[in-house]
Amino acid sequence: MRAAVYIGNRALRVEDRDPVPPGPGEVQIAVAYAGICGTDLHIRHGAMDDRALPPAVLGHEAVGRIAALGAGVSGWRVGDPVTVMPLRWCGDCAACRAGHNHVCQRLRVLGVDLPGAMQARWTVPADVVLRLPEEVPLADAALVEPTAVAVHDVRRAEVRAGEHVVVVGAGPIGLLIAVVAAAEGAEIVVVEPDPYRRGVAERLGLAAVDPTSTDVPAYVAERTAGAGAAVAFEVSGSPAGMRIATDVLGVRGRLVVVAIHPDPVPVDLNQVFLRELTVLGARVYARADVERAIELVHRGVVPARELVSRIVPLSAVAEAFDALESADGVVKVLLDCQAAG
Amino acid sequence: MRAAVYIGNRALRVEDRDPVPPGPGEVQIAVAYAGICGTDLHIRHGAMDDRALPPAVLGHEAVGRIAALGAGVSGWRVGDPVTVMPLRWCGDCAACRAGHNHVCQRLRVLGVDLPGAMQARWTVPADVVLRLPEEVPLADAALVEPTAVAVHDVRRAEVRAGEHVVVVGAGPIGLLIAVVAAAEGAEIVVVEPDPYRRGVAERLGLAAVDPTSTDVPAYVAERTAGAGAAVAFEVSGSPAGMRIATDVLGVRGRLVVVAIHPDPVPVDLNQVFLRELTVLGARVYARADVERAIELVHRGVVPARELVSRIVPLSAVAEAFDALESADGVVKVLLDCQAAG
Repeated sequence: MRAAVYIGNRALRVEDRDPVPPGPGEVQIAVAYAGICGTDLHIRHGAMDDRALPPAVLGHEAVGRIAALGAGVSGWRVGDPVTVMPLRWCGDCAACRAGHNHVCQRLRVLGVDLPGAMQARWTVPADVVLRLPEEVPLADAALVEPTAVAVHDVRRAEVRAGEHVVVVGAGPIGLLIAVVAAAEGAEIVVVEPDPYRRGVAERLGLAAVDPTSTDVPAYVAERTAGAGAAVAFEVSGSPAGMRIATDVLGVRGRLVVVAIHPDPVPVDLNQVFLRELTVLGARVYARADVERAIELVHRGVVPARELVSRIVPLSAVAEAFDALESADGVVKVLLDCQAAG
Repeated sequence: MRAAVYIGNRALRVEDRDPVPPGPGEVQIAVAYAGICGTDLHIRHGAMDDRALPPAVLGHEAVGRIAALGAGVSGWRVGDPVTVMPLRWCGDCAACRAGHNHVCQRLRVLGVDLPGAMQARWTVPADVVLRLPEEVPLADAALVEPTAVAVHDVRRAEVRAGEHVVVVGAGPIGLLIAVVAAAEGAEIVVVEPDPYRRGVAERLGLAAVDPTSTDVPAYVAERTAGAGAAVAFEVSGSPAGMRIATDVLGVRGRLVVVAIHPDPVPVDLNQVFLRELTVLGARVYARADVERAIELVHRGVVPARELVSRIVPLSAVAEAFDALESADGVVKVLLDCQAAG
């Protein structure tokens, strides 16, 4: 079978490998689609070489069907449609004991610290698998994992109906946050320099502004009659985005740091102080977030067809990463892990 | 009468002025003591020249006795011991309408935007005056205002009994935060390079470490069996302090930004993300915080005699500011506004 492998030095290679048979308590999944995430781009850039040790099979956004069951696994049948919550926690650290096992101090992520989904057959512990409704197309369900991130971020911000929310960065996660927050009844502004991604936001019915030509804090102040936004999501990963996310907020505003910022970023703590802002980190999701994401995809709240820009064969993984890094005319790209091409 | 006036260019001058008679709805206070705050030092440095327009009488930490009543003022008698909650809000902005008038979008602070307490007679609106218990010495009650800041900060962090709390910076506010959090049952570590201030912390029964010779995150990790602190207060106003306050926290830790950081500070947002930290701004106090501060001073929970290092006549205001800037052997300095000297 084929597998997409990060081999270090910014290089990905498609290899032929033998499938791993499922051991006791494991299942083997015939992966239909694996999404490419910003984290995967960070890994290829070498920013996570301490965790994703080459050669590493990447991918943590996957859907597929059960292909084989290991000993002692019950409740599943071959052919069942599934997604994966790709987290392994220790159950014993202070975070786990406090009930926050998704931020376990020894958290390992499948597709980062452990073998990932970008292969034709993926063998995982049975307890990370969640059932998908049979009637949801698998290509749509491939958005469940990033939707779970968005659900977690919106929940962390405690977004309420009628609140003004600014989403800085309209990549897949930013757009999904906007969609999930809009479903909660919030008023959304998306901030994005790329015209293609702004166009996607507008097709989804969201207000979208270009920070290179619009004074975003002034725009938000006008929309909110001077009050400022209640919530901002920093999904750009840039210092300029962090600045905008800080400046748009009103008194007691909440700023959720979603993007990965590998280096320390200048933050205007004087604004944090003067307006009593709250800056919240948000990482992955709890199981309830994944279940809610399945429901949102099932109900059609998540506009999967607008967000999935391309589906390419696993063999084209390197080109797909390149397209995402240039962000040129793409939002989400899925790898078809069963394609012959 | 004498008044201490900021005249711009880092200069303070003691002037002779006529007392302002109280107008309708105002009271005149014979100021016994006015404390010098870090904000006053920032003003002298010119960092707030857009707000404290020279010539400006500084001072917002004051105690004294009612000296005269303006027309229509009831509930007070000449001689009543009082302190002042030095905030004026508009009542009409989004913050005020949301119930957060202490962070009013048009907030004005007496002693910053409006004439302050460093004078023998201070005329203020009657509704900013709070009664002090007769049996509390006024020199002790001079700590009510900074204690209210500490009460607000601890309340903003939702400090709970048994939690590990790190206070970075042992000036007056840092030490008061430590004392108030300890009174809530928290386990305190104070981080302070100055040996005099560390000594004060130790005399108050608090653990105190020197960040120039101790690996503070490692020390906190050991004290917390690897969990990290639940809460950190950044009271140093330095980028290094912000770094320590971030690094000591465990998963879901809360970091309260108390100090003024005039310039943007590098913040390790990757740690905020990975451990789902919460960074909270906290500014001044609500009326309930001031009332709680009066109670804490009254009950002797606030160790006023340890924290007030010197009481000097108003005429020595410039030297007192200099001593505080060098932080050499001083914590809190009070100006005696009635002294002849």
